[in-house]
Amino acid sequence: MNDTMVTVVGNVATNVEYRETASGGMARFRFAVTPRRRDRQSGSWSDGPTSFYTVFAWRSLAMNLAGSVGVGEPLLVHGRLKVREEERDGRQRTFVDIEAVAAGHDLTRGTTAFRRPVKGESPQVTEAVPTPVR
Amino acid sequence: MNDTMVTVVGNVATNVEYRETASGGMARFRFAVTPRRRDRQSGSWSDGPTSFYTVFAWRSLAMNLAGSVGVGEPLLVHGRLKVREEERDGRQRTFVDIEAVAAGHDLTRGTTAFRRPVKGESPQVTEAVPTPVR
Amino acid sequence: MNDTMVTVVGNVATNVEYRETASGGMARFRFAVTPRRRDRQSGSWSDGPTSFYTVFAWRSLAMNLAGSVGVGEPLLVHGRLKVREEERDGRQRTFVDIEAVAAGHDLTRGTTAFRRPVKGESPQVTEAVPTPVR
Amino acid sequence: MNDTMVTVVGNVATNVEYRETASGGMARFRFAVTPRRRDRQSGSWSDGPTSFYTVFAWRSLAMNLAGSVGVGEPLLVHGRLKVREEERDGRQRTFVDIEAVAAGHDLTRGTTAFRRPVKGESPQVTEAVPTPVR
Repeated sequence: MNDTMVTVVGNVATNVEYRETASGGMARFRFAVTPRRRDRQSGSWSDGPTSFYTVFAWRSLAMNLAGSVGVGEPLLVHGRLKVREEERDGRQRTFVDIEAVAAGHDLTRGTTAFRRPVKGESPQVTEAVPTPVR
Repeated sequence: MNDTMVTVVGNVATNVEYRETASGGMARFRFAVTPRRRDRQSGSWSDGPTSFYTVFAWRSLAMNLAGSVGVGEPLLVHGRLKVREEERDGRQRTFVDIEAVAAGHDLTRGTTAFRRPVKGESPQVTEAVPTPVR
Repeated sequence: MNDTMVTVVGNVATNVEYRETASGGMARFRFAVTPRRRDRQSGSWSDGPTSFYTVFAWRSLAMNLAGSVGVGEPLLVHGRLKVREEERDGRQRTFVDIEAVAAGHDLTRGTTAFRRPVKGESPQVTEAVPTPVR
Repeated sequence: MNDTMVTVVGNVATNVEYRETASGGMARFRFAVTPRRRDRQSGSWSDGPTSFYTVFAWRSLAMNLAGSVGVGEPLLVHGRLKVREEERDGRQRTFVDIEAVAAGHDLTRGTTAFRRPVKGESPQVTEAVPTPVR
């Protein structure tokens, strides 16, 4: 309750790191969001400053992100926003995380072929491919 | 300004209709969102009632939706929410529309292979395929 | 899970109806959202079409809405979006509901004086005032 | 376009600083969001970690925030999310800002009396009170 839900539309900025944890598969990557701005005088569009987030995902979403998504690809990510302050190397640092609940390649920027996991096949075989197919 | 932005996570309920209009390509489909609910006593999950929306998209997003998405596939859609009251056949009807600004196959439910439009190729050839490949 | 969260910014269109139910106080009112649009040629702003929602609230939020909010006042409402199809008088009707989780007078449009419920006082006395104080 | 909209529900963590700028009044304050979590085993609720944001507002919203809102008060804020990396004192720092488009006292936590600016009165007198009335 009181979770801050957010949807970000942008580009994957790093490889999707995937690893198995005690509570299942986990994926992590950096994500870049660059708003487009229209100049009121000229009417032309330009890029605003980019915001960066760290996206985390678990279980099937983690596996499928690792198996489907590469650096530079356009994505939309929907999830819980969290801002953490942490001490690292003796100084305070701020981390901006999104715990993804859904994510997909942005169809404003290209096409996708979707494939469901085949029933009966081991999900480890069909989905958990840690090397992304690009 | 004051647009109501919404992100819906669910399933495509009808074929994606695609047509050319004076202001470019337009796609339309019905979309079903079914929340999952946890029973406080038993702790088990069950489906809540389904909400239906009509999703509209334009230009490249319209073309790529038509070329990529089939009935029953899981999607997330981010866009502007609009509720219209209209008289049809002598009675007031209510329509709930989402004007999509981004959309993609939901990677919690399967994998996708992403393909950018190839530069130099005609977009009509690479993207505007009005017959969805499923 | 999978709830569709939405924030609407607009005006209260009807009185806030308040009533006691088996599961606590419940408030309901109609809410109007009118987006502002900038004309690309002239640069001037005008009103787009209005969307109407039915807002529901429970418990303390229901009581405080009933005690604080009048017709025409500007509000922002954050909650779960639900679209229901129901048969009424032999025909199918569509209802667009927001189950509010937070709401407040919009400070872009005026000022507010906030008052917390006083500890020890009966909440029926301090908050549940069914006749709005305006 | 492509702005990341977010709604945060929480508490004002610092005084609202108000100042006049070349482009009108500007307000700024820190905002704390603490999610509530239900333990799956025990069913009891507890606080999750708090996220902090810096909220900015302009013009009438800035003036009314300064004139209406005090430290510790519950608010909901709707606006554009921005993550900035900046060098300060020779090291990289991360700032998480929300540019508010609407905000109000959260009626789940108390009551409000709303007052519109009176036409004809100077807005400096009715709204721009830089010393918050609490």
